[in-house]
Order: sequence, then C-alpha cells, then structure tokens
Amino acid sequence: MRHVVALDKAYRLLNHGPVTLISAAANGRRNVMTAAWAMPLDLSPTKVAIVIDKSSFTRELIEASGRFVINLPSVKIAEAVLAVGLESGRELDKFERHGLETLPADRIEAPLIAGCVGWLECTLIAEPHTQQTYDLLLGEVLAASADSRVFRDAHWEFGEHADLRTLHYVAGGQFFVTGEAIEVRPHQA
Amino acid sequence: MRHVVALDKAYRLLNHGPVTLISAAANGRRNVMTAAWAMPLDLSPTKVAIVIDKSSFTRELIEASGRFVINLPSVKIAEAVLAVGLESGRELDKFERHGLETLPADRIEAPLIAGCVGWLECTLIAEPHTQQTYDLLLGEVLAASADSRVFRDAHWEFGEHADLRTLHYVAGGQFFVTGEAIEVRPHQA
Repeated sequence: MRHVVALDKAYRLLNHGPVTLISAAANGRRNVMTAAWAMPLDLSPTKVAIVIDKSSFTRELIEASGRFVINLPSVKIAEAVLAVGLESGRELDKFERHGLETLPADRIEAPLIAGCVGWLECTLIAEPHTQQTYDLLLGEVLAASADSRVFRDAHWEFGEHADLRTLHYVAGGQFFVTGEAIEVRPHQA
Repeated sequence: MRHVVALDKAYRLLNHGPVTLISAAANGRRNVMTAAWAMPLDLSPTKVAIVIDKSSFTRELIEASGRFVINLPSVKIAEAVLAVGLESGRELDKFERHGLETLPADRIEAPLIAGCVGWLECTLIAEPHTQQTYDLLLGEVLAASADSRVFRDAHWEFGEHADLRTLHYVAGGQFFVTGEAIEVRPHQA
C-alpha cells in the first residue's frame, strides 16, 4: 500500500500545507511531535523547511542524528496528532501512549508513523545560525513514499477515502480537513 | 469589512497552509506573484518564512523596499492566483491584466490585493546567506487584517461563504479548497 514517490515529485506531498508529524531517532531513543510549520523549499534536489523549538526532545534527536521524517497524518489519527503536539517525549513514550505504530524507513533510522498517508525521509542541512536564531531547520529529502490509495501519479486523490484526507492545523484542537479539488484554467485577459 | 487582526494572532491566518499571493512595491513599481511556500516562523514577534525565486521581479521589489504583503486569496479569485504565478511582472502589469484591485496597506507601501480574505504586512529580516542560498525570505509581521465575514475572534469560520474559502495549491491548475472544520479532543490513554 505504501509506494515510492519519485524525489522530484516529493514536494507535492507537502505543497498543499498539511499539518505534519515529525519523527526522529538517535542513540536508541525515538520521538514524534506535531509541526504545523513545514513547507517545501526547493525542487531539485527536493528540500524542505520545518520549525522545531529548541527545547523539544525531537529537536535534540534531529540534531544528534542529522535525520528526520516528515509524516503526513490523515483524519483517522487526528486525536494522536493533537496529543503528540502537547506532550514531551522526554518523559514518556508517545508511540506507546497513543498506540502509534511505526514502519521502518527506507533510508534512515527514524521511524515512519503508520496511519499517515505520506512520508518524507530527510537529512538535516547544517545551518547553525538559522537553527539557533529561528528554530528553522532545513532538510534535503532522501526518500519519499505515500499511501497508494490516495496519492497516485504524483497527485493526491482522496476520492471516497474521507478518513485518509490530510489535516490543516488551526489552533487548540481545531483542524480543517483537506477539501475538494478544483481545476482552474488561466484567465484569458 | 476588513478588520485589524492582533499581531499575536496573525499567524492563525497562515497556519492552515493556504496558497498566498505576495505583493511588493518599490521605486514607483509594484507586482504580485503566487507563492505556495509560505509559513509562520514565530509567534512573538510574529514572523513568517516565504520562498521567492531570485529571478522574480517580486523578489527584486522586496529586496529594494524591505517590505512585502502575504495576501490570502479566496476561491473567488482562483483564476488570477494561477495566472499571476505563471507570468512575470517585469513586462506587464498583472493587476490590470487580471482585474486585480488593490487596497492601501496600513503600514507599508506594497498594496493589499482585493478579493483576498487575509493580509500580513511584513518587513524583511535581512539574512543574506539564507536569501541567496535558498531563496528563503524571513519577515516580521508589522500589521495584519482579515475579512470579518470569514475570520472572527482570531479564527477562520468560512460557514456559508463557500466562495471566500482559502485555497491550497497542488500543481498545474489544481487546488484544494479548505475543507470542513473538525474539533479534536486529546486522546485519553
């Protein structure tokens, strides 16, 4: 069900601005947290930018390993998306607590989160000033994959899979679900 | 109909990952372009990050003036959103060509685009390395405003205003419309 997405199309997973789960692992420990602030940064090679607070355990794991995964959660796991954004993984295992299952990534040690519909495996681009000053982390995508039920031919097509739609974070426990697709043609002036 | 949004809530305009129109003005010239890659960067003070190609006329105007507006277009002007992402404003006036009307901004010279439902007036944070290497521009929000029909009490509430919903860019002429709101409670483990 999970299929490889070509690297030059991997930005399409993130282009519509969905909320993400960031997972990371280092020295035998792992964690996952919610990040609404994530976007593509470049197409070739495919790069991404995410904002991760320097006090977070995930940030520590990313900087220790130089790797992270951007997971794209579906409506089905919205409760867990909210919860792992509120807790710290220093003291508890968020995976166990919220029944989040994982899959091995293709290229890195950090786990992929099951119940998500897209995954971007990334290597951190070292930019100490940007990281320290803005909590802004840049990454290059090493591998990408997606759930073939809703991402086909490099396009999201949620169709009848309402529970596999991606989420957009508002605040508190509020999200928007990704809505209907529209096709626009350039206006002829 | 346009009302001021408190600066500490301005990130909410952008938090759900909508496509944006970036407008800028300098030396008597102005331009507008589409940018899908835009996100909040900080809450206090409110900062943003956008990706703007160094070959674009908008980039030239932003770097000349040190200012830009992040406009949040609604479904109503989706045709123009697509079109101004395909053309360069060096040779033509995109505003005239696509019938885009403007409003004066509160704090900066760059115009606000009418038909949008939210506006973030920004000052560029000079980070030459980040700008040059990644086409990544950071900004601090000086003023924010929104259409009171769909953004109230610091929350988007599109309700019956289907044509005022924001857009999420996919590729080509494809967009998703912002879908229904859901309210999630933390999972009790």
